[in-house]
Amino acid sequence: MDIKEILRSVENGTLTAEEALLKIKMQPFVDIGYAKLDTQRKLRQGVSEIIYGEGKTPEQILGILNAMAENGQKRVLITRLSKEKYDRIAEEFELRYSEEARLGILGSKPAPDGLGKILVLTGGTSDIPVAEEAAVTAEMLGNEVVRIYDVGVAGLHRLLSYLDTIMNASVIIAVAGMEGALASVAGGLADCPVIAVPTSVGYGSSFGGMTALLAMMNSCASNVSVVNIDNGFGAGFQASRINHMEIKK
Amino acid sequence: MDIKEILRSVENGTLTAEEALLKIKMQPFVDIGYAKLDTQRKLRQGVSEIIYGEGKTPEQILGILNAMAENGQKRVLITRLSKEKYDRIAEEFELRYSEEARLGILGSKPAPDGLGKILVLTGGTSDIPVAEEAAVTAEMLGNEVVRIYDVGVAGLHRLLSYLDTIMNASVIIAVAGMEGALASVAGGLADCPVIAVPTSVGYGSSFGGMTALLAMMNSCASNVSVVNIDNGFGAGFQASRINHMEIKK
Amino acid sequence: MDIKEILRSVENGTLTAEEALLKIKMQPFVDIGYAKLDTQRKLRQGVSEIIYGEGKTPEQILGILNAMAENGQKRVLITRLSKEKYDRIAEEFELRYSEEARLGILGSKPAPDGLGKILVLTGGTSDIPVAEEAAVTAEMLGNEVVRIYDVGVAGLHRLLSYLDTIMNASVIIAVAGMEGALASVAGGLADCPVIAVPTSVGYGSSFGGMTALLAMMNSCASNVSVVNIDNGFGAGFQASRINHMEIKK
Amino acid sequence: MDIKEILRSVENGTLTAEEALLKIKMQPFVDIGYAKLDTQRKLRQGVSEIIYGEGKTPEQILGILNAMAENGQKRVLITRLSKEKYDRIAEEFELRYSEEARLGILGSKPAPDGLGKILVLTGGTSDIPVAEEAAVTAEMLGNEVVRIYDVGVAGLHRLLSYLDTIMNASVIIAVAGMEGALASVAGGLADCPVIAVPTSVGYGSSFGGMTALLAMMNSCASNVSVVNIDNGFGAGFQASRINHMEIKK
Amino acid sequence: MDIKEILRSVENGTLTAEEALLKIKMQPFVDIGYAKLDTQRKLRQGVSEIIYGEGKTPEQILGILNAMAENGQKRVLITRLSKEKYDRIAEEFELRYSEEARLGILGSKPAPDGLGKILVLTGGTSDIPVAEEAAVTAEMLGNEVVRIYDVGVAGLHRLLSYLDTIMNASVIIAVAGMEGALASVAGGLADCPVIAVPTSVGYGSSFGGMTALLAMMNSCASNVSVVNIDNGFGAGFQASRINHMEIKK
Amino acid sequence: MDIKEILRSVENGTLTAEEALLKIKMQPFVDIGYAKLDTQRKLRQGVSEIIYGEGKTPEQILGILNAMAENGQKRVLITRLSKEKYDRIAEEFELRYSEEARLGILGSKPAPDGLGKILVLTGGTSDIPVAEEAAVTAEMLGNEVVRIYDVGVAGLHRLLSYLDTIMNASVIIAVAGMEGALASVAGGLADCPVIAVPTSVGYGSSFGGMTALLAMMNSCASNVSVVNIDNGFGAGFQASRINHMEIKK
Amino acid sequence: MDIKEILRSVENGTLTAEEALLKIKMQPFVDIGYAKLDTQRKLRQGVSEIIYGEGKTPEQILGILNAMAENGQKRVLITRLSKEKYDRIAEEFELRYSEEARLGILGSKPAPDGLGKILVLTGGTSDIPVAEEAAVTAEMLGNEVVRIYDVGVAGLHRLLSYLDTIMNASVIIAVAGMEGALASVAGGLADCPVIAVPTSVGYGSSFGGMTALLAMMNSCASNVSVVNIDNGFGAGFQASRINHMEIKK
Amino acid sequence: MDIKEILRSVENGTLTAEEALLKIKMQPFVDIGYAKLDTQRKLRQGVSEIIYGEGKTPEQILGILNAMAENGQKRVLITRLSKEKYDRIAEEFELRYSEEARLGILGSKPAPDGLGKILVLTGGTSDIPVAEEAAVTAEMLGNEVVRIYDVGVAGLHRLLSYLDTIMNASVIIAVAGMEGALASVAGGLADCPVIAVPTSVGYGSSFGGMTALLAMMNSCASNVSVVNIDNGFGAGFQASRINHMEIKK
Repeated sequence: MDIKEILRSVENGTLTAEEALLKIKMQPFVDIGYAKLDTQRKLRQGVSEIIYGEGKTPEQILGILNAMAENGQKRVLITRLSKEKYDRIAEEFELRYSEEARLGILGSKPAPDGLGKILVLTGGTSDIPVAEEAAVTAEMLGNEVVRIYDVGVAGLHRLLSYLDTIMNASVIIAVAGMEGALASVAGGLADCPVIAVPTSVGYGSSFGGMTALLAMMNSCASNVSVVNIDNGFGAGFQASRINHMEIKK
Repeated sequence: MDIKEILRSVENGTLTAEEALLKIKMQPFVDIGYAKLDTQRKLRQGVSEIIYGEGKTPEQILGILNAMAENGQKRVLITRLSKEKYDRIAEEFELRYSEEARLGILGSKPAPDGLGKILVLTGGTSDIPVAEEAAVTAEMLGNEVVRIYDVGVAGLHRLLSYLDTIMNASVIIAVAGMEGALASVAGGLADCPVIAVPTSVGYGSSFGGMTALLAMMNSCASNVSVVNIDNGFGAGFQASRINHMEIKK
Repeated sequence: MDIKEILRSVENGTLTAEEALLKIKMQPFVDIGYAKLDTQRKLRQGVSEIIYGEGKTPEQILGILNAMAENGQKRVLITRLSKEKYDRIAEEFELRYSEEARLGILGSKPAPDGLGKILVLTGGTSDIPVAEEAAVTAEMLGNEVVRIYDVGVAGLHRLLSYLDTIMNASVIIAVAGMEGALASVAGGLADCPVIAVPTSVGYGSSFGGMTALLAMMNSCASNVSVVNIDNGFGAGFQASRINHMEIKK
Repeated sequence: MDIKEILRSVENGTLTAEEALLKIKMQPFVDIGYAKLDTQRKLRQGVSEIIYGEGKTPEQILGILNAMAENGQKRVLITRLSKEKYDRIAEEFELRYSEEARLGILGSKPAPDGLGKILVLTGGTSDIPVAEEAAVTAEMLGNEVVRIYDVGVAGLHRLLSYLDTIMNASVIIAVAGMEGALASVAGGLADCPVIAVPTSVGYGSSFGGMTALLAMMNSCASNVSVVNIDNGFGAGFQASRINHMEIKK
Repeated sequence: MDIKEILRSVENGTLTAEEALLKIKMQPFVDIGYAKLDTQRKLRQGVSEIIYGEGKTPEQILGILNAMAENGQKRVLITRLSKEKYDRIAEEFELRYSEEARLGILGSKPAPDGLGKILVLTGGTSDIPVAEEAAVTAEMLGNEVVRIYDVGVAGLHRLLSYLDTIMNASVIIAVAGMEGALASVAGGLADCPVIAVPTSVGYGSSFGGMTALLAMMNSCASNVSVVNIDNGFGAGFQASRINHMEIKK
Repeated sequence: MDIKEILRSVENGTLTAEEALLKIKMQPFVDIGYAKLDTQRKLRQGVSEIIYGEGKTPEQILGILNAMAENGQKRVLITRLSKEKYDRIAEEFELRYSEEARLGILGSKPAPDGLGKILVLTGGTSDIPVAEEAAVTAEMLGNEVVRIYDVGVAGLHRLLSYLDTIMNASVIIAVAGMEGALASVAGGLADCPVIAVPTSVGYGSSFGGMTALLAMMNSCASNVSVVNIDNGFGAGFQASRINHMEIKK
Repeated sequence: MDIKEILRSVENGTLTAEEALLKIKMQPFVDIGYAKLDTQRKLRQGVSEIIYGEGKTPEQILGILNAMAENGQKRVLITRLSKEKYDRIAEEFELRYSEEARLGILGSKPAPDGLGKILVLTGGTSDIPVAEEAAVTAEMLGNEVVRIYDVGVAGLHRLLSYLDTIMNASVIIAVAGMEGALASVAGGLADCPVIAVPTSVGYGSSFGGMTALLAMMNSCASNVSVVNIDNGFGAGFQASRINHMEIKK
Repeated sequence: MDIKEILRSVENGTLTAEEALLKIKMQPFVDIGYAKLDTQRKLRQGVSEIIYGEGKTPEQILGILNAMAENGQKRVLITRLSKEKYDRIAEEFELRYSEEARLGILGSKPAPDGLGKILVLTGGTSDIPVAEEAAVTAEMLGNEVVRIYDVGVAGLHRLLSYLDTIMNASVIIAVAGMEGALASVAGGLADCPVIAVPTSVGYGSSFGGMTALLAMMNSCASNVSVVNIDNGFGAGFQASRINHMEIKK
């Protein structure tokens, strides 16, 4: 981090100790009271800023968007954004909206610059909204995404018919509710890392996705790691990180 | 049931009301205090008597075996029988013992007389003890049993190489711990009923088999029903019932 | 499966390797993007196609129905279909609807061709919707169904008065919420396999049916296997499979 | 309570305020540091003193017994007393011991003086230790106890053959593990209050008795109330209270 | 039961065997399809008929009420009856209604004929609806009821000020949510049986009353048994049973 | 407590025993049927009266407010007060209202008289309502409060930039949902006691705040204790107690 | 923190930037590979160093003790130290040992310098080991501790007889298993902060202390906050912090 | 996969259809009854074979090792291998053993060929065994591993002093029990993917690691995905996959 540079400036006399301390404190975010914006995260983490829309009022989201705009942030993804909130925000910002995935998108999709393709699989039709959250997130972070939906394990021939695509993916995002077995089967068929996303699809003892989460956690395939229930965003984010791995020595 | 016959005997004057009441009460079981033996269950339920060995002292089991012997029962299966209890019982009864499956077996295996074969699958090597409990139970109840072990879904090619056997089974018992996905995959590949047995194989969030149980409960295959964790006996019993279905009009 | 036939066609020169691979991939389902339809499942699994209505938009369901119609599928059961979705679909397809059981039915009920009768029992009046889902499913799959409702174990005389019917059933579907004891009692009274369906009927520590599910799992009757909470469809499907058992050698 | 009497003594001048306060504080128990003995509970609660043996050292139990002896307490029941602790205590006190029920008994069984009989039922043989804890507790508190063991609901004819005894009981203690359905069936057959005791008998998803507890909680019979898992003592105690009801106006 | 009488009638020639069997089957309830009414339960169980209103349609409830009326039942309590259902039923039956306790009451309150008074305590104001369900149930079953509300343990002086009433009760119903400690404290203060009713009052980790249920289950007072969360009816019913204990020899 | 004084008055003859008993019973609260008001708690506990608004009708709250007014209570905090209830109450009492924190406030904020400042931290923007409940509660109880919001641990630099404030707080209230790690990090950075408040912010396996609660319970920082999910009031109350510690010898 | 001082030294030229960075990194702990010792925590947190003994080998603990000795730390508390580990460590360090509380103590107890007394209460005799962990921890951190054991709420008169001591405490640590009601009752009686410690004392549905934890979490007393099950150390630590509050402006 | 090649061989006449089918079935694994060995997985998955040692007998492990040896596999990692099993296996194979991590290692560590370094962090000393399982696994799969242990979040300065190493890692494995906050903090500090491993370190409400698992699942850092409790192997495996990402077009 830049603490070294700051210290050197003190050493050089460019900064006083007080100024340095102030710099350390003031620099990395903008404080708008109810939120502290990581205006430098784009640099530090290599990605666009994301706003988690749930639990924020439209006014708070607008405040954040304005602060970002002032800091030059042009590409923003708002997750878990209800239609009502979108309508209010769209009065002030030119936001595209995916109702299915509850995503608000500011700015254009960047050109893909990852190592390969991210493959998004779903067990059923009902898992598609979560899969779309993952897919769009990955696209907004610079990845090429391939979607294959409704290929649950109770009809293996459907999944097997896409074996080439599966074998060729760089990262797989396996989105499934109910018993969540898709992650294990995909993990066994593929070489690449699999990010498993349990969904709340199901009823009764599916416990809002907890059964799928636990099943994925206990996958007998070793190349599977798991994110939270319905967390399409997290899966897309982590997959993008993996798809942008670089040589570090 | 025979209540009709008993009533008719009262009508005929063959029995007094008191005698009839006594008959209804005394007939169907032998009471040895700590246990009430269904000496007629062989007829009523079409199967040999089973003793659940856990939580009974060797003396109690011996008492039950003796009472059964007096009622002419020659074929008995004792489940969840520890080696220690077996050693004590073997002093008085000529019992075969499977330490792996913790089964004590009195009498010979009957000739198979079911509709077809019962196929027992396991996800891994560690699931074999439970699978053997299921397989031996089914054999003792008059079924031909085929075993295919260690064909978990993370290596689908292993399972798929037995596709003929799977397609040809009358009933499948799918025994698996961890994420329990074997039941769904087998259910999707096969036409026949699948009895899923979750096992306590696993660690951490497998919760002693509860994760596998829940996953099997939420199977996306519709021909799957589930028995308790590690309940190989119940699966073998239910599979045998299904494999002995008859025309009832 | 037909992989053997396909391979033989390659050997015969009837098919090239590429054509064969294509055949394997393309044959078993129709891909309409958000869903992959098992157009051959009727043959492979011996049953009509079922659509799980929850989590699908009316438009998606219509798309699936149209694809099925094109493939000649005339008998379709749509489960968990809300009244709203039904109204939309009924504009284009001549669908019968059971609001109680949330079932949409396309095509007529087939003539029963099973081994015997499937008996559907409920513990209470509130369990009837789930029982109806099971009963109608079984009827649509070619089974004669007998219904006895509100015979919970706290009033045993009610259940016992149907002892003849119970003893004569081929398969029993025991539908109960609260403590779910009906499955154990029915299992003890009957010779045949019992499929237990826990329901979400109850309150407080019934945990939306989980208590009934666990109780059924731990049934002291050995001829009981269990499906998911409120899964009337699965119970009807599995019971139908069992009621259609054939000799397989 | 006697606060009224104490206050009157102050009013009378028999006691000073300080003496009264002292009396209130010192009277109802004897303090031996690690335990505060309710030496007056026999009067206040109408029962003998009980020592919960688990988590106490033999020395602590001896200390309590000595303090009780000094206060004239001759009839003591020690629950959950391991054989090891019993052996140590038996060196100093003439204690009878039931290893099965883990009970240490000081003094003789009193003559029964309740309204009627307490009936103790168990689902299986393995539930007997808990049932014995209940039965002996009730006997030590002045009740006549009838035991009927191994009458689980999967073999209803066994339970029904004791219908007279069931109909004639004053209180029923239903002891069962696994699915715990005995409580509901007994509750439906009987007029009297049923105290249900779930036991930890079972495996897998019986969760150490929690499944039975929940099932009993959700009993469809209204005359059932429940105590903790394996709490035979509590059931015997509560049943005794009910069996000793008196007219209070 | 009357099976003895029926058998004697066969013996006497008053009944044929077929007639007897029919009698056994037909007598104890009226079958209206979706419900089986225990028209004799009033005799057999000593109480009026109760209808559990939840999960039944107004039409079903009306059908049951009509069948009851035909059988001469004049006093009926309908529990968990929503205002909407009440309004529909009130068009045909003269029903009193308690919106707070969601109770519909047909017929007058009987004169109390129990051994003493049933005391209903609540921890807080929010527990009152459940307490009222218990209190009215007990009153409808012939008990004198005393209500003391909002005497939770965090303000012990409030509870202690009613010590006389507590000491004088025949049965106590302790209704509390949150940590449910009221049951233990009341159990310690009183001689009589305590029926604990956990309520769903609370938030966060109160888990809809499960925390209170578990706490009550683990009460350190031995005269406490527990019914389901919010089950005021069950508590009132069980308390009434206890308050109507008779000498049985 | 004053029992000593009362006893002395009896001793002095100022009070008769009956009067004394009456005094003990009548004094500490006002009974308005559905509620028992601790009119002296202000003295005994050193704080203003709080009304828990949930589960009380507006009429009940008004009744309580009136009873308080009659007892001279001028500063009242109503927690979990919905807008609807507020509107009704505001017709009769001059109540300020915070919709975000669902607080109704009667009377003015007292001057801070604590040992130091109470610092309220939140992990995110969505935690602010709970934090405000804590902050306003603490202010109403006489504390100076500092708020720092949206300083979750995934962006440590945000939290670290307030290190001075953290080091200088007397008590910290750490409000966080999701993984609840803020409590541990704050606990490690600060010397003072930390009261952790898990919030229901999150989704999927956050289980309505239970994950945060458990994480906080298992904090590796030793100066952390925890209150219930979303219990901002409790945290503010406990923090105020700590901030008002006095020398007691 | 000292970052300001370090920066000033850079400004003064006393330190170079590199030296400063090194200082920040190296200063606050000693790294012995498997552990990083907070050698300055005594200053920073105002307390002696604590070693959590569970999960560490005796060799690791010795290594840590040696590193501490080298840094001049003379007073160390080792929690959850088994007898076996103690024996090994006692060969090299003069350690006192409390087997009951599993504590190893190096160095003498400091003179109490807190605001008042810390009162440790237990519900039963079995809770004493956890209570001792709390009490000794508090004593080692400079507090006067008063112990009152076995004053559970089922015998309120026992607790009430210590009312003076309770009213006079600065902080109360309420240690209880089973239903954990002691915390609520103590919280209601006392003015001071209560730290509740659930214990794993109990059986069945006590779930190893989780029932007590949840009950304490849902306490209706507002001055209660909770630490982990059996976490006597944490309670003693937090209580000490509270008992050492100072004026901070 | 090679199905295309096999089909082409049939087309060429090199293989008959039967031979081809046989090839598909026999090729990818060796069947030794209780296990099916993926002898080609090294090629297909790019890694050495792993044997999960738990639940396998030493004889079974030896059988698998022998079958592997026959297939030329020279580098094998046996996880969860107890000392007893190791001793037996070491009689026949030259196995290195890490008792701490319960790993048996056959063959030498390969030269690292990943993109960068894998950093393994632990929260405490007790987490080291799981961390070592992860670290050794990663090393055996060709990765350079850096270990930093005992840097839990309650002492942030310890973690921050390694900021350079953290910022420079390619993948981070965060191993922590208790509240598991290390994953979130590391995720916030680093750019790279973080694999979180919850451990069973803790007590009480840590629930054997489930609290840490849930906390990690709900991490507010988006670059965190999670594996099962104590699954060091899975973390090392997945991290290795990520560290060996290649360009795929």
